[in-house]
Amino acid sequence: MLTGGPSSNGGVNRGRFLTPDVVVVGAGVVGLAIAWRCAARGLRVSVHDPAPGSGASHVAAGMLAPVAEAYFGERELTGLLTESASRWPGFAAELAEATGVDIGYRTEGTLVVGLTADDLTEARRLWAYQLGLGLPVTPLRPSQLREREPALAPRVRGGALAATDHQVDPRRLVAALRIAAELAGAVLVTEPVRRLRDVPAGVTVVAAGCGAAALTGLPVRPVKGQVLRLRTPDGRPPGFRHVVRGYADGEHVYLVPRDSGEVVVGATVEERSDLVVCAGAVLRLLRAAVDLVPELAEYDLVETLAGLRPGTPDNAPILGPLPGRPDVLVATGHHRHGIVLTPVTADLIAGLVTGDGADSLLASFRPDRFTAASGAGPPASGGVASVPAVGSGARTTSEQAMEDDSWN
Amino acid sequence: MLTGGPSSNGGVNRGRFLTPDVVVVGAGVVGLAIAWRCAARGLRVSVHDPAPGSGASHVAAGMLAPVAEAYFGERELTGLLTESASRWPGFAAELAEATGVDIGYRTEGTLVVGLTADDLTEARRLWAYQLGLGLPVTPLRPSQLREREPALAPRVRGGALAATDHQVDPRRLVAALRIAAELAGAVLVTEPVRRLRDVPAGVTVVAAGCGAAALTGLPVRPVKGQVLRLRTPDGRPPGFRHVVRGYADGEHVYLVPRDSGEVVVGATVEERSDLVVCAGAVLRLLRAAVDLVPELAEYDLVETLAGLRPGTPDNAPILGPLPGRPDVLVATGHHRHGIVLTPVTADLIAGLVTGDGADSLLASFRPDRFTAASGAGPPASGGVASVPAVGSGARTTSEQAMEDDSWN
Repeated sequence: MLTGGPSSNGGVNRGRFLTPDVVVVGAGVVGLAIAWRCAARGLRVSVHDPAPGSGASHVAAGMLAPVAEAYFGERELTGLLTESASRWPGFAAELAEATGVDIGYRTEGTLVVGLTADDLTEARRLWAYQLGLGLPVTPLRPSQLREREPALAPRVRGGALAATDHQVDPRRLVAALRIAAELAGAVLVTEPVRRLRDVPAGVTVVAAGCGAAALTGLPVRPVKGQVLRLRTPDGRPPGFRHVVRGYADGEHVYLVPRDSGEVVVGATVEERSDLVVCAGAVLRLLRAAVDLVPELAEYDLVETLAGLRPGTPDNAPILGPLPGRPDVLVATGHHRHGIVLTPVTADLIAGLVTGDGADSLLASFRPDRFTAASGAGPPASGGVASVPAVGSGARTTSEQAMEDDSWN
Repeated sequence: MLTGGPSSNGGVNRGRFLTPDVVVVGAGVVGLAIAWRCAARGLRVSVHDPAPGSGASHVAAGMLAPVAEAYFGERELTGLLTESASRWPGFAAELAEATGVDIGYRTEGTLVVGLTADDLTEARRLWAYQLGLGLPVTPLRPSQLREREPALAPRVRGGALAATDHQVDPRRLVAALRIAAELAGAVLVTEPVRRLRDVPAGVTVVAAGCGAAALTGLPVRPVKGQVLRLRTPDGRPPGFRHVVRGYADGEHVYLVPRDSGEVVVGATVEERSDLVVCAGAVLRLLRAAVDLVPELAEYDLVETLAGLRPGTPDNAPILGPLPGRPDVLVATGHHRHGIVLTPVTADLIAGLVTGDGADSLLASFRPDRFTAASGAGPPASGGVASVPAVGSGARTTSEQAMEDDSWN
C-alpha cells in the first residue's frame, strides 16, 4: 500500500511509480527526519515501515538533555548530543513552519535533584564531571530549587539547573515529521523491508532501530525501557514546569511535564527484549516519582508501556556507510538519545546521501568502528572487514559501560 | 436487541415475544443468578443490561470471605455472609453441572497476615472479635505461616488461617451464570431500563448495583475500588495458593492467586464515583503487595482498573420489596460482598418472586429499614413511608461505619 504525498515539486508526481533515489527503512523520528531532509533536497524518497512511529519514538519521553545525559566515558557522544541540541531550536522552528504542528518544544530547562544525602552525593559527582567538560550545569541552593519548583518534595536535599536541557513531545514530533516528509514529496510505504537486497533504490538508509541488527548484522541490541504516563485529574498543566530528573533513594527517574496535563515518568534500562510491563518496575517508577513530586500521587495513571531502545556496544549511535556496502547508510543505535539526536542525524545522513562528503562529526560513529579488534583504540576508519555479529567480543567493554547507565 | 436462550422447557419458545413474568434489571452476578433461579422455577424471565457483566462483577476479586470480612458492628451482615458462604459449595457444583464452565472455585482458604508489629496488633484485635463470634479463624505461628506459604516475605510478623474463606473467578462466574440463565430459558436484553414504569412485567427485580439509586430512590451510593491484575511471567500458577489478605505498614491489601497465573491485587475503598485509575492508589497497592509477597515484583502488570461498588448506609445489602411497590424487588447494596452473597441473594429473591413467603434471613436487609427515623434502633419492618434520598440523615451513621472499612 502506498501513501503518496502531494506533488510539491514542480507538479511532477514523483515517487509513486518511479524507483526512488532513497529508500529509508523505518519511520520513527530518525527515519522520518532523514526522509524529510532528503526529499527537501529534491530526491525521490520512500519510507518503509509497517507501523510508522510505533517503535521507540512512541515510548520516548522527549528530553533533549545533552548536559544531564553527559556520562563518564562518553565524551564523543556528549559532543554529538550537544551539537544536535544546539540545532534543535532551528529544527523545531523549521518543522513548525513547514507543518503548523505544535510539537510541544519547551525550553524551561531541567532540574536535576537528589532526594537523600546519598543521592545528592551521587548527583554532585556527575555535576563535577559535567562542569569539567564546560557544560552549563548550575548547582542550586535548596531555597533556589524550591523557588523554581515549589512542587518538589520538602525532603529533596538539593539540585542543579541544566538550563539548556529542553524537551519535546515525541508523538507530536512523529506526526509533524511525517507531514513534513510527505509535504516535501516523500512517500510512506506501510510494508516491512525484510532484506536489504529487496530494496530497489540508489541508496538505502537503515533507520530501523533495533531492526537494524537483522538487516545489517551490526551489533545493535534491544534495551528495554518501561515508562508511565500520568495526567492531571483536571486536564490542566502539571504543577511543575521544568523537566525533573532525580535520584530518589538510589532510583533514577525523570518527570517530563507537558502543557496537556501529561507527565511522562521514566524509565527503566533493562537488558531484555520483551515488551512486558512489570509490577516491580511500575512500583519503583511511581515510588521515585511521588517521592520527588508528591502531588503526582493524585494524578491519573493513563498509560504503562514498554519499548526497546537500539543499544550499541559503546552506547553511541551508528551513523554512516555499512562496511562493504557504500550504497547502504546506517542511522541507528541512538539508545536513550534518539529524540535529541534527530536533527544532527538527519543532517549528517542527508549530507552523505547527496555526496556532500563525510562530516568530521561522523568520525566517531561510523559503522566500521566495530570491526576493529579491540574497542579500546581510536575508531577504525575505512575498514570493510566482516561485521561482527551481536554478542561478539566487542560487547565486553560495552557491558562495562552500560553498568554506569543501568539502574534497574 | 434480544438474545434468546435455547427453549429448554418443553420446547416452548418462551420469553421472546411474551410479556415476561419477571424482568431483572442488571446482568451482573446478582442479577444473572436471580434470573437463573427464577427461570429454573419455570418463570418467564428477561434480564436487561446494555453491557452484561461489565459493572462491579468485572472488577471484583472474588473472595468468598465471611470470616476475614467480619467487621466490628456488622453482626447481621456477618450472619448473611456466613450463610451465603455455606451455600457456595452446592451453588458452584450446581453451576458447573448446568454449564460445564470452570468458575475457578478454590478452597485453599485465606491467610490473614500482618507485616509489622503494629499491623499484627491491628489484625489480632479483629481476630479476637471474629473468634468471639465463633468464626473459624486460627492464629498461626510464623513458622506455620511460612510452611503454608513460603512466598511470604520474611518480614511478615504473623498471621492466621481463615480456612473456610474461599475464592472464585468473578469473570468466569458471570460467563457461567449467563449460560445457566439462558439454558434455563431466561432472555438477555441488551438494552437499559431507565424507569421502572417502562418495565412490562409482573415482578421487576432491581439488581442494577449503583444504578439502583436512580431507579428506586434507595440510598445506594458508589464506593470506588481500584484493583490491579498481575500475571506470572511464564503463565504458570502463582507461587502461592492461599488468598493472602494483609496489613502492610497500615495498608490493607489482598492477593488472590488463580491457576491461570493471574493474581488480583486490591483494593481501594473510596467515596468517589469516577472510574479513574490513580497513580497513588497503584503505588500503594503495589507496594503493599510486594511487601507481603516479594516475588510479585517480577510479575507482569496486565490490568489497572477501577469499579464502583453499590454501598449502603449500614454497609449491608438491600434485599426485598421496594416500599409501596410490592411488585418491585430490590437486590443491591452488596458493597464489597457481591460475589459471596450471590447464592443467598438469588435464593431469597427467587423465593419472594414465587411467593414462598419472606425468609427470616431477609429481616435485617429489607429496603424499608432506611425509612426509620434513626439508624440506631432495630431494623424497621413493613414501613412504606417515603424513601429517603441519597444524602439523607441516615447516612451519618453510615459514614461512621465506613471509617473502619476505608483505608484509602
